[in-house]
Amino acid sequence: MDLLKFLFGRRLANREHGERRIGVFEGIPAMGLDGLGSASYGPEAALSVMIPLGGASLAYISWVMAPIVGLLLVLFVSYWQTIKAYPNNGGAYIVARENLGISASLLAAAALMIDYVLNVAVGISAGVGALVSAVPSLHPYILPLCLGILVLITMVNLRGTLDMGRLFALPTYTFVASFIAILAIGAGRTVLSDGHPQPIVAPPVLPGATEAVGLWLLLRAFASGCTAMTGVEAVSNGMSAFREPTVRHGHRTLAGIVTILGTLLIGIAYLATAFRIGAMDQTQTGYRSVLSQLAAAIVGNGTFYYIAMASALAVLALSANTSFVDFPRMCRMVAEDGFLPKPFAIAGRRLVLSVGILYLAVAASALLVLFGGITDSLIPLFAIGAFLTFTLSQAGMVIHWRRQAREAPPGHKRRRHCLHLSISLIGAITTGSALGVIAVAKFVEGAWITILVIPMVIVLLRTVRRYYDRLAATLDGPAVLALTAVAPPIVLVAIEHWNQLSAKAVEFALTLSSDVIAVHLTRLSGPETKEEDRNLHAQWRDHVEKPAMAAGLQPPRLMVTQARYRTIHEPFLRLASDLERTFGQRKIAVLIPEIVKPHWYQYLLHAHRARNLRSRLLRYGGSRLIVISTPWRLEEIGRAKEQNSQETGAVGSSR
Amino acid sequence: MDLLKFLFGRRLANREHGERRIGVFEGIPAMGLDGLGSASYGPEAALSVMIPLGGASLAYISWVMAPIVGLLLVLFVSYWQTIKAYPNNGGAYIVARENLGISASLLAAAALMIDYVLNVAVGISAGVGALVSAVPSLHPYILPLCLGILVLITMVNLRGTLDMGRLFALPTYTFVASFIAILAIGAGRTVLSDGHPQPIVAPPVLPGATEAVGLWLLLRAFASGCTAMTGVEAVSNGMSAFREPTVRHGHRTLAGIVTILGTLLIGIAYLATAFRIGAMDQTQTGYRSVLSQLAAAIVGNGTFYYIAMASALAVLALSANTSFVDFPRMCRMVAEDGFLPKPFAIAGRRLVLSVGILYLAVAASALLVLFGGITDSLIPLFAIGAFLTFTLSQAGMVIHWRRQAREAPPGHKRRRHCLHLSISLIGAITTGSALGVIAVAKFVEGAWITILVIPMVIVLLRTVRRYYDRLAATLDGPAVLALTAVAPPIVLVAIEHWNQLSAKAVEFALTLSSDVIAVHLTRLSGPETKEEDRNLHAQWRDHVEKPAMAAGLQPPRLMVTQARYRTIHEPFLRLASDLERTFGQRKIAVLIPEIVKPHWYQYLLHAHRARNLRSRLLRYGGSRLIVISTPWRLEEIGRAKEQNSQETGAVGSSR
Repeated sequence: MDLLKFLFGRRLANREHGERRIGVFEGIPAMGLDGLGSASYGPEAALSVMIPLGGASLAYISWVMAPIVGLLLVLFVSYWQTIKAYPNNGGAYIVARENLGISASLLAAAALMIDYVLNVAVGISAGVGALVSAVPSLHPYILPLCLGILVLITMVNLRGTLDMGRLFALPTYTFVASFIAILAIGAGRTVLSDGHPQPIVAPPVLPGATEAVGLWLLLRAFASGCTAMTGVEAVSNGMSAFREPTVRHGHRTLAGIVTILGTLLIGIAYLATAFRIGAMDQTQTGYRSVLSQLAAAIVGNGTFYYIAMASALAVLALSANTSFVDFPRMCRMVAEDGFLPKPFAIAGRRLVLSVGILYLAVAASALLVLFGGITDSLIPLFAIGAFLTFTLSQAGMVIHWRRQAREAPPGHKRRRHCLHLSISLIGAITTGSALGVIAVAKFVEGAWITILVIPMVIVLLRTVRRYYDRLAATLDGPAVLALTAVAPPIVLVAIEHWNQLSAKAVEFALTLSSDVIAVHLTRLSGPETKEEDRNLHAQWRDHVEKPAMAAGLQPPRLMVTQARYRTIHEPFLRLASDLERTFGQRKIAVLIPEIVKPHWYQYLLHAHRARNLRSRLLRYGGSRLIVISTPWRLEEIGRAKEQNSQETGAVGSSR
Repeated sequence: MDLLKFLFGRRLANREHGERRIGVFEGIPAMGLDGLGSASYGPEAALSVMIPLGGASLAYISWVMAPIVGLLLVLFVSYWQTIKAYPNNGGAYIVARENLGISASLLAAAALMIDYVLNVAVGISAGVGALVSAVPSLHPYILPLCLGILVLITMVNLRGTLDMGRLFALPTYTFVASFIAILAIGAGRTVLSDGHPQPIVAPPVLPGATEAVGLWLLLRAFASGCTAMTGVEAVSNGMSAFREPTVRHGHRTLAGIVTILGTLLIGIAYLATAFRIGAMDQTQTGYRSVLSQLAAAIVGNGTFYYIAMASALAVLALSANTSFVDFPRMCRMVAEDGFLPKPFAIAGRRLVLSVGILYLAVAASALLVLFGGITDSLIPLFAIGAFLTFTLSQAGMVIHWRRQAREAPPGHKRRRHCLHLSISLIGAITTGSALGVIAVAKFVEGAWITILVIPMVIVLLRTVRRYYDRLAATLDGPAVLALTAVAPPIVLVAIEHWNQLSAKAVEFALTLSSDVIAVHLTRLSGPETKEEDRNLHAQWRDHVEKPAMAAGLQPPRLMVTQARYRTIHEPFLRLASDLERTFGQRKIAVLIPEIVKPHWYQYLLHAHRARNLRSRLLRYGGSRLIVISTPWRLEEIGRAKEQNSQETGAVGSSR
């Protein structure tokens, strides 16, 4: 227990729930790491597609980045409205459920679940990949590094979203501050030099074009650049993490993330053109990322450069964290609707949804181990899930605003709803089109896997729900007490030897019922068995039957049976079914005396007969067989014995 | 369950115990593999020490092998007597316990336990080592091969000693037949050629001496050659495995093993001299074992050579098996005396002592993994344990015969006992001296570790015994039924919602006691909670209190409490201690309704609140808190509901 406390902090009481919620300061690291991390690979991904254009790519970068930033703005406004309309949770699952129906919500849930797992694996391996390309001597340790970061993120999240937000604030804000500074310096120098700044470390000269520009190439660049936008939905999915007033905290966090992300995207696109920086082929030696070329060109290779790049690396590696905030919260809602197992909805000792966190960690680590820590091939699988949920969420909001507009009286309010509707509609159409472009552009690269897996997940979710429905149908309904059979049960007491433990058990059994039968199983074989039997019967006469009769009770019977196998539950089941035939409606209770073992090492020293017997009887006994466990601590038996002997001693001395 | 049956065979009934015992045919593979395997490395070990003597070593080989064979004979006669005197089990542990006292028996047990574990690791890795030197391409797979063989031996032994003896008969008897044939051919050719036979494949010429012969060198050669003798005690330790009449089967098995081993030792020593074969340095390339040189010299490099060498390799790799036969049987006796945990004495589904077998497998695999499958460095640790148990066993028998001789009337019988005594005395002195030589010769090489570990094991054994003694002291003693408090317990029923499950539970509770309190824990928080509460109270009035009063029973109460943490046992414990203060001596029973989950996948879908609550209440509740589990299968509830609704339907239609 102390280890748990050391690792995860003290257990939190239910009433501390409110204090454990987060504000904007923790919200940006908690939910923004995914979005901010995108800044380092989104523009790079778009420029990579344009490598065949050579130096000409810089002429078209604004053609690609402008619609991306525009789309980002549409999404920002749309999610701003969603947060206001669904202040408790405006995730795609809820929005789709409320407005588009169960099927759409399950589609959103399946897409999000896949997306979140992929995001963890891809985010961590991208971060480690960047680290390894910076420090090549770490190359043999890719997988251990990935798993180590995964364990770190998992443990910090198990501690709580609040602690996590505080801990990860340092790398997040370092990253934001240093890159805003770099971009500001770069922009200043560009303006001062009339758009032709001199780089401090010159980027490699861009090669000539090997291909002419075409619409399909630009569309593909756009589709790749769209990865910069994943993470924008995170705030709406994680609203339940925020302190009251949740809407205000959600709005500010969303605004913070989008402002930083937008600034970075625009700045990078602008300065890449100014400093003539393009993407390099990752498979070639000497590869350097766009961000690294840019930072070096603007501030040189000094300490600042290294701080900035280290923070970018940390943000990339920790971008998986956003999944850890949102995935368990979404799973909780899905579980509360009965589509996922109930444990996903139960808060753990630190008031976080431990099952969801652990499930995410296990699934992601399976992916990491399977791919040896290099999950590049998973990237195409994962934009499709994000844009599917964008589209569903936006479409759901369209329906929402249309209903609101219909219900509102004509006038100012209805006009506002119509404005909202049109923004959501633009969002739905643009994200839907982007989804189409991505699906077509990346179908062969692996997007088909996502399109195949999503229906399978939906089938699974529906199967779980069907199970709970059947369960509820059986359990619920008019449950009126039927008091026809009020006869107490027949109590069978399992005894191994006649000792203090069995005596206590028989005493208790007699308080429950007048029909008590002690059952003793003889051991394997041998002539000693008969001798033992005789002894037991003699003890039974003297120590049980006589006192019982003296107290005016029906004396308990003793039955000795032989076990055919080494399991002890079978003779009990046989006996119980015999008794059922004789006694009809009466229930049969098996009383199992048990020694409580407070120390772990005691578990090695006992055969756990009591525990095995209990679980097997419960499992195979049917509903007529009740199991009663009477626990005894050794020191309690010792104390009882002392008292007994003192009383006997007192009697002796008074004679 | 079907997988278990496929792997290990059907479950065996207790009465099949007799049929599962083994005879001589299975006894030789089961207990002899260790001894027979020694033939391949005993002479080699002696000759290895004599490498510095070069060709001269052959002149002294008989000086070393003759006392070894003599000692083997003494041990044979002595163990023959031991088997007769202790027909159920004549292992060193029993003999020492009966004649030398507890401390000596624990010394023997500790030495044997260490010895058996080491034998498994060393035997398997020696076999794999020989295989790898024959097929060098297997070199990267040493550890997997070792673990694979360990798993095979473990599984075959878990199936049963009988099955194991039959399965391993093939390699054992192939080995015996082929090497007896090789030795016979070799001896024939030696006699025909007047002691100077021509080898078919000439062994390498022996080098000149680099050292003069000395007593210490010969003693060390003797000590090393003594490893050929380990395994002779196996029959006496495993007597309980034999069919009736056990003594005859034991004697024949012992005679078979010793005859084969003696023939092989004498034959190898004689033919090594005749064919001028010495040990080669194992660290040099081109190394070939004495056995391999000998076989090639006598029968050439043909098919027969390969069959013989393959069987030798199999015997070496399977020599670990002897430990699997004897270790669990010894542990059972030690456990029955209370020095090891009780589970060591419990027969598993195939009537073998599964816990001992698994423990041995785990301990040996830990050693194999730790040493990467190359356990040569463990060999010095392990002869010392064997010879310590030899000495203890022989010394015990000396005491035994002295007592017998004293008790017997003068005459023929007493003289026979005196003869036995003198044989055991010779055995004790010779094995004791060998132990001394081994301890001194191998002290620095690692025997000191054994000498250090043995006392630690003894302390552990005594600690276990102390635990059981304390347990027995508490449980035993005069246990007379004390029937002062016959009031039925106060029954608390844990309910989650008011449904069929809770109704059945309350109905049953009312058959046990008139004081029934249903306890409902409200969930985390929220305004819905109050609404739920109101509902529950209304249902309670209508569906519980009214019918109970109508039946003339005291109506059960409903209590709604709030949980401070997510654990549910704490409110129950608090409530129980409150009730204890009010009601004094009466026990408190917590009734937990439970849905039985017959399928494994259902375990993923439930939160296991019932199981957790039960185990925590048993653990922390003290002896005044009884736990009652009422199991319900879903289909049973469904059936009960149908009946109810049919009855209601009938009432409805009769109106």
